[in-house]
Amino acid sequence: MGSLAGIVGYRGYSGAELVRILQRHSLITPVLLEHRDASSPAAHLRSVPCTPEAVRGEGISIVFLATPPDVSMELAPALLRAGTRVIDLSGAFRLRTPAAYTRWYKEPHTQPDLLAEAAYGLPEFCRERIPAARLVANPGCYPTAANLAIRPLLEAGAVDRDAGIVCDAKSGVSGSGRKPSLKTSFCEVTENFSAYSVLHHRHVPEVLMMSGLEEREFSFTAQLLPVDRGILETIYFRTKRATSAEELLAIYARRYTGETFIRLHAAGQAPDLHAVARTNYCDIGVTVDTDTRRAVVVSAIDNLVKGAAGQAVQNMNLLLGYPESEGLL
Amino acid sequence: MGSLAGIVGYRGYSGAELVRILQRHSLITPVLLEHRDASSPAAHLRSVPCTPEAVRGEGISIVFLATPPDVSMELAPALLRAGTRVIDLSGAFRLRTPAAYTRWYKEPHTQPDLLAEAAYGLPEFCRERIPAARLVANPGCYPTAANLAIRPLLEAGAVDRDAGIVCDAKSGVSGSGRKPSLKTSFCEVTENFSAYSVLHHRHVPEVLMMSGLEEREFSFTAQLLPVDRGILETIYFRTKRATSAEELLAIYARRYTGETFIRLHAAGQAPDLHAVARTNYCDIGVTVDTDTRRAVVVSAIDNLVKGAAGQAVQNMNLLLGYPESEGLL
Amino acid sequence: MGSLAGIVGYRGYSGAELVRILQRHSLITPVLLEHRDASSPAAHLRSVPCTPEAVRGEGISIVFLATPPDVSMELAPALLRAGTRVIDLSGAFRLRTPAAYTRWYKEPHTQPDLLAEAAYGLPEFCRERIPAARLVANPGCYPTAANLAIRPLLEAGAVDRDAGIVCDAKSGVSGSGRKPSLKTSFCEVTENFSAYSVLHHRHVPEVLMMSGLEEREFSFTAQLLPVDRGILETIYFRTKRATSAEELLAIYARRYTGETFIRLHAAGQAPDLHAVARTNYCDIGVTVDTDTRRAVVVSAIDNLVKGAAGQAVQNMNLLLGYPESEGLL
Amino acid sequence: MGSLAGIVGYRGYSGAELVRILQRHSLITPVLLEHRDASSPAAHLRSVPCTPEAVRGEGISIVFLATPPDVSMELAPALLRAGTRVIDLSGAFRLRTPAAYTRWYKEPHTQPDLLAEAAYGLPEFCRERIPAARLVANPGCYPTAANLAIRPLLEAGAVDRDAGIVCDAKSGVSGSGRKPSLKTSFCEVTENFSAYSVLHHRHVPEVLMMSGLEEREFSFTAQLLPVDRGILETIYFRTKRATSAEELLAIYARRYTGETFIRLHAAGQAPDLHAVARTNYCDIGVTVDTDTRRAVVVSAIDNLVKGAAGQAVQNMNLLLGYPESEGLL
Repeated sequence: MGSLAGIVGYRGYSGAELVRILQRHSLITPVLLEHRDASSPAAHLRSVPCTPEAVRGEGISIVFLATPPDVSMELAPALLRAGTRVIDLSGAFRLRTPAAYTRWYKEPHTQPDLLAEAAYGLPEFCRERIPAARLVANPGCYPTAANLAIRPLLEAGAVDRDAGIVCDAKSGVSGSGRKPSLKTSFCEVTENFSAYSVLHHRHVPEVLMMSGLEEREFSFTAQLLPVDRGILETIYFRTKRATSAEELLAIYARRYTGETFIRLHAAGQAPDLHAVARTNYCDIGVTVDTDTRRAVVVSAIDNLVKGAAGQAVQNMNLLLGYPESEGLL
Repeated sequence: MGSLAGIVGYRGYSGAELVRILQRHSLITPVLLEHRDASSPAAHLRSVPCTPEAVRGEGISIVFLATPPDVSMELAPALLRAGTRVIDLSGAFRLRTPAAYTRWYKEPHTQPDLLAEAAYGLPEFCRERIPAARLVANPGCYPTAANLAIRPLLEAGAVDRDAGIVCDAKSGVSGSGRKPSLKTSFCEVTENFSAYSVLHHRHVPEVLMMSGLEEREFSFTAQLLPVDRGILETIYFRTKRATSAEELLAIYARRYTGETFIRLHAAGQAPDLHAVARTNYCDIGVTVDTDTRRAVVVSAIDNLVKGAAGQAVQNMNLLLGYPESEGLL
Repeated sequence: MGSLAGIVGYRGYSGAELVRILQRHSLITPVLLEHRDASSPAAHLRSVPCTPEAVRGEGISIVFLATPPDVSMELAPALLRAGTRVIDLSGAFRLRTPAAYTRWYKEPHTQPDLLAEAAYGLPEFCRERIPAARLVANPGCYPTAANLAIRPLLEAGAVDRDAGIVCDAKSGVSGSGRKPSLKTSFCEVTENFSAYSVLHHRHVPEVLMMSGLEEREFSFTAQLLPVDRGILETIYFRTKRATSAEELLAIYARRYTGETFIRLHAAGQAPDLHAVARTNYCDIGVTVDTDTRRAVVVSAIDNLVKGAAGQAVQNMNLLLGYPESEGLL
Repeated sequence: MGSLAGIVGYRGYSGAELVRILQRHSLITPVLLEHRDASSPAAHLRSVPCTPEAVRGEGISIVFLATPPDVSMELAPALLRAGTRVIDLSGAFRLRTPAAYTRWYKEPHTQPDLLAEAAYGLPEFCRERIPAARLVANPGCYPTAANLAIRPLLEAGAVDRDAGIVCDAKSGVSGSGRKPSLKTSFCEVTENFSAYSVLHHRHVPEVLMMSGLEEREFSFTAQLLPVDRGILETIYFRTKRATSAEELLAIYARRYTGETFIRLHAAGQAPDLHAVARTNYCDIGVTVDTDTRRAVVVSAIDNLVKGAAGQAVQNMNLLLGYPESEGLL
C-alpha cells in the first residue's frame, strides 16, 4: 500500500483536507497522529500517538504538521531526529531569520537551526531544493496566490516597481481555522465583508522573500469573504513599458511551461473561485490598459488545496520521488 | 400628508428600496407610476400610469426614475415639461458630455440638453446646486463610496498622484438589478467571488469627474460579492508626505463637519458591510504605514441606500427644502 | 423622554435587537445594565451596573433579561424586590412547574415561587394577564410560531388530533446565540442543513402548554438553516372533517381580528422568511387537500423580533399601558 | 479507453455533474452531444451533433438525456432506434401510465410505448430489471431520498399507515435547474427559505409508486434551501408497535446489506448535507420516542449526485455490466 504518511492536526480544516487527498493517493496510506486531544478519534483510519517511538515503530516516512506555529516548533525536532521527514503547514519555518519571525509573528522562534535548514515549498519556484530537504515549510495561502502571479513578471522586468504593487486579497473563512471565534461565526460573516491586518498581515514577508520586492513597494490587505474556501487576489501595478495583456500572458506561458497546476485565462478574462474550488490549480487572468500602462492580474486558488493541503502533497510527491501531480488531479 | 412623490420602476431593487424609505418619510406620500409592465400591481399603494397628464393631474411634485438609462432618457423630458422635478437613479444624466456618455455606455445620448442641465446629486460635494435643479442625476453606487473617500484627500493635497490610486471595489448582487441572469443566479454566486469590468467599468468616469483624477491615475476593478447588499472599496495610494492615519482622519473630520451620513473609524480600524446595511451612512477607515507612505482607505456603504435610494431621498429633501436626513435615520 | 427600560445581556443577538427596537420607541429610553462582563461598553448609550440599587436609583421601571436561564433565575428576584418589573427572554419562567422545568432543561429550578407567578407573554392569547404582571416570561421563538398557527385551529375543533400534528421547524443561526461554537461557525453552517433535538427540543413543552396538545400528539424537529435570522415552521395535520383552505383561513381571520402582527396569505400560498425579516409579524399560509383531509400550515416569523425582542417590547407596551405596536411598525 | 457515453444537456447542472463523474470513470469516455444550442462548446471534450447518424457513427453505446421531459420524449425514440441505450434524467419516463403523467406534469405524454417499457432506475430496489433495459428512467431527486428511507420500513410492516407519513423535504437551488429565473436569483434566495408545491409536487407519484403508499397516506412539501446542492428530508410517522430506533435501524441494516451507497447513523443521530455533498451516498438517521410510537427518519443525499448524475452512472454501470460503484467512490 505504498508509504505511510502521518498527519498531526487532522481535525483542522487543512488537516482534514490532507486526509481526503491522501486517501485518493495511490502510493500513500495516511495514518492519524494524535497530539494532545485524543477525543473523538476518526474511526475509519488508523491512529497512533504522535511520538518519535510510534512514528519510528510504524515506519512512517513523512509527517505533515497541520498545527499552529508553536506546536510545529515543538514537534518538528523530535520527529526529524526519529528519522522521518516533515512538511509543516504552519508559518513556523517559512521565514529566513528568527528576527523576521519575531517581527511578524510577535513571539520568539525556538528552533533557529531548523528555520535555517527548512526548504520553502513553492514547487513552481523552489523545485530543486525540495527533494533533498528534511523539513519543508509549506507556503502560506495568500503568498502562494501572490507569488505565482507576481514573480514571473518581476523576473521578466515587466513591472514599474517605483509605482508599487498593490495586492488586494480576499479569503474564504476556512483560512481562519476551525477554532470557534466570534469573528468566524456564521451570523457575523454571512452578508458581511471586512478587511483585516491591513498592510501588516504576517503573510507579507513571504511575498517579499520570494518576489524580491521591498516592503515599501508592496501594499497588501487581507479580507474575509462570506464563503467557505477560496482565495482571490486582485493585483495592480504599472507596466515598465507600454505592454499588452497578451505580452504579459506570454511571460507567464514561458515561465510556466510544463507546470501542471497553473492555468492562464485569455487576455481580459478574470478567474473566479468556483473554477479552482477543490483543485490544486492556480488560475491567472490579466487585463491591461496599454496606453496608460495600468495592469491588473487576478489570481485564484483554493486556500485549503493549492494554499495548504494540496501543495503539501505536491511537496511530498517531490520529497518521495513520486509523480508531482499524483493524487492531485 | 405632505407632497406626492412618484416612483417609476418600483419593482426593481432600488425602486422597492425607495418605496420602503418613502413610506417612513413624514412629509411625503409615495405613488407608484406604471410604465409598460402593469402586471402584479403593488396593491398596498396607489398607482397611476406614468404619463404627463396623470402626473400633473395627481399633483405629483417629484418623480424618481429607478429605470435603465434608455428608459430614463425617454421619460425625463415629458415629465419635466409636465412641471414635475425628476431624480434619475440611472446613469443617463451623470456625465458631462454626450461623447463621454457614448464612450462608457456604448450608445448615443438622446437628450444632450438635459445632460448639460442635470445636477449631479452627491450632496456632500454638490449641495449648493441641488435645490434649484429640475433634474438631479443620482450618483452611481461605486462612485459614491469612492468619491466620498478620495476627494477630501485630493483637495487637501495629501495624495501622491504620480503613484496612482487603486480602488478595489466589491459589491453585493442587488447592484446588478433584479432581472434574472445566469451571472446573478444563486448557484453561480454562492461560494464564489469574481471580478468584472476590470479597469473599464462605466462608473469610472463619475470618479474622474468628481475627483479631478485623470484616467491614468485611477485603477478600478468591480467584483461580485456573495451577499445581497453592500459595497466595500479598498483604496490604495501613497501619501504626498510622511503622514499618519490620524492626520488623514483629521482631513476627513474637517471636510465632513456637520455631515450626518459620514462616519469615521479610529485610525487602523476598517469598516464592514454589516454596520452600513439598511442605512444611508458611508463608513470610512484609514490605515497608514507612515515611513513608507503607503495608505489604505476602506469605504463602505449600502449600495441600495447611500448608493441609490437613500441618496435619492437625500436629494429630494434638498430639492423640496425638507431636513436633509428626514426619513433616513 | 418617557420611561427608562434596562437591558441585561445587550451584547447577545436578542439583547442587541432589543436595544435597536427601543431606540426607535417614542416613549422609552433604553439603559444598558452591566452584569459580569463590563468590557467593551457600548459607548453610545448610558450604562449602569445591574444592581437593585442602581436600578432603583435610576428610576428604571422595567428590565429586560436577555440572559441564559440560570442568570435570569439569579437576577430576577432582586430586581423584582427593587420594585422594577421584569420581562425575561430566557426559558427560566415559561413552564408551569419546577418538575417540568427540570425535565426539559436538565437542571433544578431555583425560583419556584416566581415560576408560579410569571405570566406567559404571548399577547395574542394571554393579553389579559400581562398588564398586571410583575414578571413576564417571553415565549420561545419556536413556540411562538407554532402556537400562533396551531391554537386557533384546535380551539375551533378543526384538527383530527388522533392522527397527530407534525411541526417541522427551521431556524436561522442567530437563534443559537452569539457565543462562538463549532456548530455555529460559518464553515460548518454554510451550504449545510441539519436537524437537532429531534422530538426532544426544550421548546416542546411551551407548545403543549399553550395548545393543550399531549406530547404523544405532537412531533417536533428543530433544524438549522444557513441564514442569520428567521423561523419557518411547516405544520402537518389531518382536518377533522373535509375542509377547504379557505375555511381554515376563516378560522384564523376570526380569531385574529384586530391583531396587528398576524398576516394571512391567500389559500394555497405559503409565506417565506424575507417577508418577516426585521418585523414583528407572524405570516401564516394554508394548503389543504380537501378530499384526503391532509392540511399544511406554514408559519414564519423573525426569531429575533416576534420570536424574542419584538415580542418582549410588545409585552412591555402592554405592561406599561402603551399602544401595543409602538416601536414595532 | 472503454465505451463512449454521450451526454445531451451537458450545460445544465445535472449534465455538468455527469461530465465530471464520467471523466473520472476508468471504463468510459464521455462525448458531448449538441442539441439545439451549439454555442459556447465545451472545448476540452469532443462534441458531435445529437443525431442518430452521429451517435451510430461514433459507436456511442449509451446516451444520457439531461434534458427537460419534452426534449427527452422527442429524442429518446430515434436514439433507441439507432441502437444506443438511453438513461433519461427527466421525469418523462418515470411514471407508469400516460394518465398519471398528464395529471402530474400537466401535459400529454407523446411516447406511451416507451413509458411502458422504461425501467425505473432506483438500483437498491430495481436492480434486477436494469441490466436488460433499453431505456432507464433515472429517479427524481426527492423520491430517491424518500423511497430509500420509507420503503424498507413499509416492507417490514413497521409503520402505522393509518396515521399517515409526512415527508418534509428541503432542496438546494441547483435542483431548480440552471435556467435563470427570479425565484432562483441570488438576492431572492440568500437569507430566505420558502415552501413550494405544497402537497402537490410532481415527484409525489414516484414515492407512491415505489412505496405502495396511497396518496391520502403521504403528505409532502418541497422547500428551497439557500444552498447550492443537497436534499434533506425529515420523515415523520407512527410505528406500528412500540419500537426502538435500534430496531428500525436493524431493519435498514438487513435490507441494505451489501449496498455501497447507503450509510446508517447511530440511533438518535441525524445526517446533514455536508457529509453527502459531492458523493453518491444516502445517509439515514432514526430517532424514536418508543412510548408514544413517534418516529422521525432523516434522509440526506446530494441532489445532483445520488439524486441525478451519480445515480445515472450507477445505472449505466448496471446496464453495461461494470462494477456498480465504478467512478462513484
